[in-house]
Amino acid sequence: MNTNQLISEIQKKKSFLCIGLDVDLDKIPKHLLKEEDPIFAFNKAIIDATYHLCVSYKPNTAFYEAYGLKGWKALEKTINYLNENHPDIFTIADAKRGDIGNTSTMYAKAFFEDLAFDSVTVAPYMGKDSVEPFLAFEDKHTILLALTSNQGAFDFQTKTVDGKELYKQVLETSKTWKNSRNLMYVVGATKAEYLADIRNIIPDSFLLVPGVGAQGGNLQEVCKYGMADNVGLLINSSRGIIYASNGEDFAQVAAEKAKELQQEMQLILSQ
Amino acid sequence: MNTNQLISEIQKKKSFLCIGLDVDLDKIPKHLLKEEDPIFAFNKAIIDATYHLCVSYKPNTAFYEAYGLKGWKALEKTINYLNENHPDIFTIADAKRGDIGNTSTMYAKAFFEDLAFDSVTVAPYMGKDSVEPFLAFEDKHTILLALTSNQGAFDFQTKTVDGKELYKQVLETSKTWKNSRNLMYVVGATKAEYLADIRNIIPDSFLLVPGVGAQGGNLQEVCKYGMADNVGLLINSSRGIIYASNGEDFAQVAAEKAKELQQEMQLILSQ
Repeated sequence: MNTNQLISEIQKKKSFLCIGLDVDLDKIPKHLLKEEDPIFAFNKAIIDATYHLCVSYKPNTAFYEAYGLKGWKALEKTINYLNENHPDIFTIADAKRGDIGNTSTMYAKAFFEDLAFDSVTVAPYMGKDSVEPFLAFEDKHTILLALTSNQGAFDFQTKTVDGKELYKQVLETSKTWKNSRNLMYVVGATKAEYLADIRNIIPDSFLLVPGVGAQGGNLQEVCKYGMADNVGLLINSSRGIIYASNGEDFAQVAAEKAKELQQEMQLILSQ
Repeated sequence: MNTNQLISEIQKKKSFLCIGLDVDLDKIPKHLLKEEDPIFAFNKAIIDATYHLCVSYKPNTAFYEAYGLKGWKALEKTINYLNENHPDIFTIADAKRGDIGNTSTMYAKAFFEDLAFDSVTVAPYMGKDSVEPFLAFEDKHTILLALTSNQGAFDFQTKTVDGKELYKQVLETSKTWKNSRNLMYVVGATKAEYLADIRNIIPDSFLLVPGVGAQGGNLQEVCKYGMADNVGLLINSSRGIIYASNGEDFAQVAAEKAKELQQEMQLILSQ
């Protein structure tokens, strides 16, 4: 899926919502635990109830790996279900990978070929040759961590490096990498005030913005400072949508919460 | 496995060798491909031939993830085989993970509980609250990327941050984190000249040192600048050992290569 197709989906659905599929067996409705594959059963129900309200789904791989083989199998079933039934939806493997060149190529194969995700999140600490193997895949996107939504972002990311904050160095340096057109960036909604500066460096790149909702980020603020001419935003909400109810009505309540965000987005897009 | 047990194994075996189990089906001997699980068959043969020469094994998870479910299964069988047959060997999941707090906890569970590794490599970019969930596990170790062996290390890690290189900031800041006694650090052998400075900041911490052999790092140099009173080094070699032959004699040749390194280490330890 290329960027123009994503923009076209955003315009069609009047939504730039990404739903985070972070499945924790301690938090999903109890009646699902008797299913053969409770993780996939949960995801399928959430997807069936919300696919018309969002343009992207983002499973965080940590939640699947924590359940070992059955978790990895549930991840595989989830991405296959999305690709078969909703090929127009932009899929993100939130994996935060990154390793030396030949090893990053193995990760890229894992997520782009074996699992057939449209994109994967990648950590920048190891530099150019750890990221370019991901960028080498045509029509796939690499979403680089820039300024994350957590408190620990202030430990290194906002520190001044050669006269400029590290996350800005990451943005500027990454623009020089081969196939940098395939880059998107993670910028936390909890740091909306940084977005104007970020847009000066990368005016058109798509930003994946976690932290709206449960983590306290504000959608209006993010859009005020972060929206580009091509929208350029994917706003992620995970817990605020998928765990809004843990009763039998969980999928319906998730759809209601997704609809609230979608309608707020529709209003912003029409302004 | 705690640090004292690791030191005791190093003294017993006169070796601080770690063997990287980076299994690529394109590189292993062809006759193994007819096995039901070629990846595990390869690992088992390498382990059986080398366990007395090394104190640690390090599967890089990328190589397993690239093969999807069957790769994950082979990883599980490999760590189970090690834990059942060689509980005195220090196991490293080279996964380079890191995410916001609750998500890092899921990764820690995946590697420390579900797979029962002794340690996992973690990227520092997201700061304190992305690393402390790993450190919370008693008798487990978190191996933080500091100065990696690749060229991309010069993109950000060696840049000056508030008057000091970023990798030094990572070393110093991480010492203030809760349970920092459970920290080890990745420092590439290709950057041996940095080791004296690193030892000024972390005199006793264990360093996992990749890059000896295929990547060009020099064992003598690494030991000259990096060895601590407690040895404090785990020298990793992957391709130089496991792919030394791709014939039927691959395990025997791997043992010979491991033996060469072990004997070099024995000599250094006796000096």
